[in-house]
Amino acid sequence: MNSNDTICALATAPGGALGIIRISGPQSVEILSRIFSKDLTTAQPNTIHYGHVVATPHDGSLTNGQSVASQSPSTSEVIDECMVSIFRAPHSYTGEDSVEISCHGSRYILNKVIELLIQNGCRMAQPGEYTQRAFLNGKMDLSQAEAVADLIASSNKATHQMAMSQLRGQFSSELSQLREQLLRLTSLLELELDFSDHEELEFADRSELLSIANKINNRITTLAHSFETGQALKNGIPVAIVGKTNVGKSTLLNKLIRDDRAIVSSVHGTTRDTIEDTIDINGVTFRFIDTAGIRQTTDEVEQIGISRTYSAIEKARIILWIFDTNPSAEEIKETLERTKDKSLIIIRNKIDISPSQNLHQSAIPGLNDIPVIEISAKKGVNIDKLEQAIFESANIPELSEQDIIVSSARQYQSLVKAHENLSRVLYGLETGLSGDLVSEELRLVLDDLADITGQGRIVPNEVLGNIFTHFCIGK
Amino acid sequence: MNSNDTICALATAPGGALGIIRISGPQSVEILSRIFSKDLTTAQPNTIHYGHVVATPHDGSLTNGQSVASQSPSTSEVIDECMVSIFRAPHSYTGEDSVEISCHGSRYILNKVIELLIQNGCRMAQPGEYTQRAFLNGKMDLSQAEAVADLIASSNKATHQMAMSQLRGQFSSELSQLREQLLRLTSLLELELDFSDHEELEFADRSELLSIANKINNRITTLAHSFETGQALKNGIPVAIVGKTNVGKSTLLNKLIRDDRAIVSSVHGTTRDTIEDTIDINGVTFRFIDTAGIRQTTDEVEQIGISRTYSAIEKARIILWIFDTNPSAEEIKETLERTKDKSLIIIRNKIDISPSQNLHQSAIPGLNDIPVIEISAKKGVNIDKLEQAIFESANIPELSEQDIIVSSARQYQSLVKAHENLSRVLYGLETGLSGDLVSEELRLVLDDLADITGQGRIVPNEVLGNIFTHFCIGK
Repeated sequence: MNSNDTICALATAPGGALGIIRISGPQSVEILSRIFSKDLTTAQPNTIHYGHVVATPHDGSLTNGQSVASQSPSTSEVIDECMVSIFRAPHSYTGEDSVEISCHGSRYILNKVIELLIQNGCRMAQPGEYTQRAFLNGKMDLSQAEAVADLIASSNKATHQMAMSQLRGQFSSELSQLREQLLRLTSLLELELDFSDHEELEFADRSELLSIANKINNRITTLAHSFETGQALKNGIPVAIVGKTNVGKSTLLNKLIRDDRAIVSSVHGTTRDTIEDTIDINGVTFRFIDTAGIRQTTDEVEQIGISRTYSAIEKARIILWIFDTNPSAEEIKETLERTKDKSLIIIRNKIDISPSQNLHQSAIPGLNDIPVIEISAKKGVNIDKLEQAIFESANIPELSEQDIIVSSARQYQSLVKAHENLSRVLYGLETGLSGDLVSEELRLVLDDLADITGQGRIVPNEVLGNIFTHFCIGK
Repeated sequence: MNSNDTICALATAPGGALGIIRISGPQSVEILSRIFSKDLTTAQPNTIHYGHVVATPHDGSLTNGQSVASQSPSTSEVIDECMVSIFRAPHSYTGEDSVEISCHGSRYILNKVIELLIQNGCRMAQPGEYTQRAFLNGKMDLSQAEAVADLIASSNKATHQMAMSQLRGQFSSELSQLREQLLRLTSLLELELDFSDHEELEFADRSELLSIANKINNRITTLAHSFETGQALKNGIPVAIVGKTNVGKSTLLNKLIRDDRAIVSSVHGTTRDTIEDTIDINGVTFRFIDTAGIRQTTDEVEQIGISRTYSAIEKARIILWIFDTNPSAEEIKETLERTKDKSLIIIRNKIDISPSQNLHQSAIPGLNDIPVIEISAKKGVNIDKLEQAIFESANIPELSEQDIIVSSARQYQSLVKAHENLSRVLYGLETGLSGDLVSEELRLVLDDLADITGQGRIVPNEVLGNIFTHFCIGK
């Protein structure tokens, strides 16, 4: 990928009333002007211009045998009436000269405009190439670039907030604070080295150094731990609905999903598969794992199904245990044992057809602590109460925009490496290792943190490739 | 639909890197400024501004129980970093003050921004409401408004050219010329009435009037006739592939479709069903009608299948008759009879496995005129030659941008009515009907033509409704 090229791509999904084609690179305005009814090479930045995209025969656009008019290519062809936005370096998304063409959202028009741009000197953009250029031109660091993809993929409040916080540089500024503290640690170590003739100085310094290093290490550990929450929010918190057959597991799942579907349907077009077994509660995604009914059996085939249910319980973080009539002591004991590491929500269904019964909680130790939620999945009674219980049992920390949640595995790995190298620093400081050796380890920690933002470090092409190939084309 | 409302809608398809939300109406800039990090109420027209869309707790956006942050709604929430374009009446698409917000294409963000706009005074736009406002504000006439929907739906050169020509006002200017000629006719008739005492004058005038009326009628008839081509181009030209079983009908269809699919796949997202049995040749869509193999049989069930093939032949405009070995005299005779009103293309398939054989053309009168195209559907031999033959047999007139092709049934009906009323004018002129009666009929013709553009006529709400409900939301 040559970053001197001028690139173009469709930046919107095909199929709407409008389609936006984005051009970026040194020749953006020149290339546009070749296919536009107005010469915009001297246009002011951040201005919008009305005009026509025109295919003229001499540019080869009519010689590919694709067109009716190619039979008499004597006139130029108006492809679309467009609005064109002009951006000038460095005040654009990529930091380069850029142009956005707002066209009618017709497949023919969008294809044709891109075809014309390529004939006139543009190259088709690679996935994420605009954001990669923004990174290379210093408009954002790597962690912010990764947040762009997360932001576009965000479909609820929690994932949006994580991505937006990271995009706005909360994580970056936290990292730069850590970097400053690490540099301070290094300079104190150097001070120690300078005064190393005076043996009595060393120990006083070391305790201060240790205290600083411990503070940094705590912060890095906290950031690394946030990855678990980040993953849960990004992928959805796994929930399994278990219970005997015919107690209403599917009815409940459909009810939960349908209630949610109504909320999300105002903008459609997202993958159905994903929507079908996830719901959003208070801005957090919960992902349902399919289970078969649990019951005691000696039938081998049925036992396979049940063992699948147990494996679903294993994968889940929250278990909804549902029954209609009072469960047997056996079932209670079995379920509590199987779910003891999980958040368990006990549900009695069908309260619309059978009267409320007290669960014989006293028979089983430990059940007293867990309230039973009485619902009618069919009639939709107390579903809101159940949703609230699900949300609470997920135990998602109360997030604010200032919170930093690490959601990228790459960033997490760098934090883990930083923690490991910092542990060696701590060990070195505690065991009286010589300052220059400790200093060496410290430099590794600085590098690990620099890897996250890609600033002050040469980022290998493979790393860039891994990050940006997961982007969509046009971003 | 109150046109004093300020309306908003997503103008792009959901799912891309970018999403554009369009606001239009008197309060556009004020409402935007309430949710934007900058006050743009005094911003210059046609300028672009970078900033943040922000949800502040007091506007109620955080009180719907949808948000994690609702647990501590003390701070405002940044929804997105956006580019905002400002347009001022009358220099906008709708002719009103308008704003376009370019957001990251996340479902959450797009929903949230629209939610905020509605909380701050916008109303959700109806389908086609932007274009309807453009019409009501005199930015375009009705025929141009209809062309907007056609333009967005256009997926090939021919449909694009029809829509673009109409959008750019070729049809409108033709209609206004016809109108001028009709008004001249009316004034000449009035002149005749003024001089009606001088009987010798009448006949001289009438022949001139007749000549003008005939010229207008010819033009209206031509326009009305273009509707057939317009329909064919818009819906695709129906083609049936017929032939015995196992001669390679499906292989040929797959080959034609696959070759075409490769061309159209660069922008995906259109309906698969439609793509699956249509192909574009030289910018014109051909639509394949499913057929069963034809053969002589006494089996009743099979005869039903064959009668379906005959009905497919009925519906088709072009028949591809395919065989591998030489067809029997019987088959030749039968096929020629069945397809005598159609464009017939005769294809010998499988030339890769069996040597070229001369068709015994002399046996059947009439077959001499029709060339046989020898192909291998499997190996892809001569498919380009076949496509060219299909295109030529469609007999689509060579279109230029100046050509007017009527593609709307509403416009066609008005032209037919105009033609009927004009025929009465002609009859009146020929039979010496009194000038004021002829004048009355002439006024009807003027009204019929005015219905097409909606200019100088009150357009009933039902008509507007019929036109604009077929638009997408956001246009």
